[in-house]
Amino acid sequence: MGSTPSNSDFTRIRGIALDVDGVLTDGGVWWGPGGEEWKRFCFADIMGISLAQRAGIEFALVSGEDSPLVDRFAVKMHIRHVFKGCRDKAAALLEFSAATDIPLRELCFMGDDVNDLPAMKIAGFSAAPASAVAAVLESAGFVAKKAGGNGAVREWVDAILAARGIDCKELFLKPRVSEAAAGGRG
Amino acid sequence: MGSTPSNSDFTRIRGIALDVDGVLTDGGVWWGPGGEEWKRFCFADIMGISLAQRAGIEFALVSGEDSPLVDRFAVKMHIRHVFKGCRDKAAALLEFSAATDIPLRELCFMGDDVNDLPAMKIAGFSAAPASAVAAVLESAGFVAKKAGGNGAVREWVDAILAARGIDCKELFLKPRVSEAAAGGRG
Amino acid sequence: MGSTPSNSDFTRIRGIALDVDGVLTDGGVWWGPGGEEWKRFCFADIMGISLAQRAGIEFALVSGEDSPLVDRFAVKMHIRHVFKGCRDKAAALLEFSAATDIPLRELCFMGDDVNDLPAMKIAGFSAAPASAVAAVLESAGFVAKKAGGNGAVREWVDAILAARGIDCKELFLKPRVSEAAAGGRG
Amino acid sequence: MGSTPSNSDFTRIRGIALDVDGVLTDGGVWWGPGGEEWKRFCFADIMGISLAQRAGIEFALVSGEDSPLVDRFAVKMHIRHVFKGCRDKAAALLEFSAATDIPLRELCFMGDDVNDLPAMKIAGFSAAPASAVAAVLESAGFVAKKAGGNGAVREWVDAILAARGIDCKELFLKPRVSEAAAGGRG
Repeated sequence: MGSTPSNSDFTRIRGIALDVDGVLTDGGVWWGPGGEEWKRFCFADIMGISLAQRAGIEFALVSGEDSPLVDRFAVKMHIRHVFKGCRDKAAALLEFSAATDIPLRELCFMGDDVNDLPAMKIAGFSAAPASAVAAVLESAGFVAKKAGGNGAVREWVDAILAARGIDCKELFLKPRVSEAAAGGRG
Repeated sequence: MGSTPSNSDFTRIRGIALDVDGVLTDGGVWWGPGGEEWKRFCFADIMGISLAQRAGIEFALVSGEDSPLVDRFAVKMHIRHVFKGCRDKAAALLEFSAATDIPLRELCFMGDDVNDLPAMKIAGFSAAPASAVAAVLESAGFVAKKAGGNGAVREWVDAILAARGIDCKELFLKPRVSEAAAGGRG
Repeated sequence: MGSTPSNSDFTRIRGIALDVDGVLTDGGVWWGPGGEEWKRFCFADIMGISLAQRAGIEFALVSGEDSPLVDRFAVKMHIRHVFKGCRDKAAALLEFSAATDIPLRELCFMGDDVNDLPAMKIAGFSAAPASAVAAVLESAGFVAKKAGGNGAVREWVDAILAARGIDCKELFLKPRVSEAAAGGRG
Repeated sequence: MGSTPSNSDFTRIRGIALDVDGVLTDGGVWWGPGGEEWKRFCFADIMGISLAQRAGIEFALVSGEDSPLVDRFAVKMHIRHVFKGCRDKAAALLEFSAATDIPLRELCFMGDDVNDLPAMKIAGFSAAPASAVAAVLESAGFVAKKAGGNGAVREWVDAILAARGIDCKELFLKPRVSEAAAGGRG
């Protein structure tokens, strides 16, 4: 990636586009006898997205798969920008940029496989979970210590919020904030 | 946390309030095509709660989520103090204290994410699984080596019972006790 | 355990009693919204039990839980000795011994939690997965490197068969045997 | 294995036969109360098979189990050579060789348990996931660092494509290719 941003640059990030399988999940898919499909998400990421949204960061889901689980996650997290069955993730990122009026240089794409690379390349920032394939690990500006579906998105969000000087701990420890906090989870 | 109790203090603990997702589970949620939601609990924790209950310790479940699985776990373990969809976990802990007549200083709260911090702060003791987010790991008085849903609660219970001089092994190795043991599991 | 048998002793083992949760599974239980219960078994153990059965070793399942999944596993593996909802695992082992006419000193019990200790104590041999609780790890004569539900039973069986001089690899590499092999799996 | 091929030999591989349980899955099987059976596959492997197919490599699935999930995976990945309930995997490999007109010396078999050994022995190349049983790890020409169901197949495919000088990253980073890419997933 041309863009290996310094830590202070993270303050510029206003929008995060997330691949789903392998980023918000562990990359696994459980199949049942009748053709049912199950995936595993995690609450650490759910809380992370919620915290980032409170800080004004926009989210998009960009998935190569065409699964109803993507919609369900979007509904739970109030994410309005959803791209499913996506063959061209760079084009999806451009659309996300246009829809939110956030320039590419202030957007991040987090992915884990080679089909995420074109979007990661044009985004101002790129991130990957520890479980990404080798080619993505080499390319990402930020590599989480945690694996997909196990807090990688949260770790990335925590790094962004920390760069902005936001202490998530304080959000909850200040008495009034704790009462008013919308969407407390876990 | 102001309260980093010494090991001997554990003998004071008479009640344990547990966050659910990420503490009694691995923090994951499996979603199916029809909107079904599954979570994973573990028998090491089930046995741990059972052992602690025999020693007279009261339990509460305090979950930010509003899931029927919390009720199911409560029924299985005969836990009467259940808080679901909880936005203010410190308030829930106070309610648990009032209902059981156990003062805060003799209660423990085990959590894994930032919305657990207010309750962890007012509890006499705080604990966290190894898989908790960084802010919680820094704050907890006791950090289990095991992750949530994989024996962290059991590890915490074992430490409390050991401090009281209770050898769980002996409970089962004494012939009569083995027969009388209620709720043997595994 | 008084019985820390030397490796050569393993040749004496003619029967293996297995706890289910945490030994044949990873100790987890997945719960669904309608009260459904799921557990995870593994094919490495399934093959291991099959290999040991071909070598004439008898198996029993001894579970503290009263789950239909135990019966299902027993049917799949042609295990006739099944104890469910078992509060006294030592008594179950004695019954297994009587039913098979194999003396206790030639039986092994593999368990992972404190309620398995009485049976492990009276069995000639005791074994535990790496994921067992501390009290069981200390007591077991054989501790597998693998965790429950992830090949611990297989590892134990491989050690027993190796002590007998049986090379499972050869079973399958000899042309005729490969054809005749019943229950090939994986 | 007599055949421990040098890395450059990988260029000869034109077909890959895969065991399913423990290779394309983590070797686990989830059982539900009504007899349902679930298994976990992963998208890293799905993408890997897709990339190898674009490079002209043929695939076969060779499973000792007789599960509809094998067919489902075959349909998703357009794999036409499927062997279920297979007791003689070497025979299946010979059949795959005959059907595709690819000689054994240009075929690879990836397996994880002892019943895979006969096929691994006659194949020109053999591979195993890190999670394979000891006898298979010793025999395999290529041992992935990743476990079954967690990218072992992908790692093996990446090694083969790299030996051919194919950079999967470039496939997706060249603008035109990204648009035309069939089956982008993740």
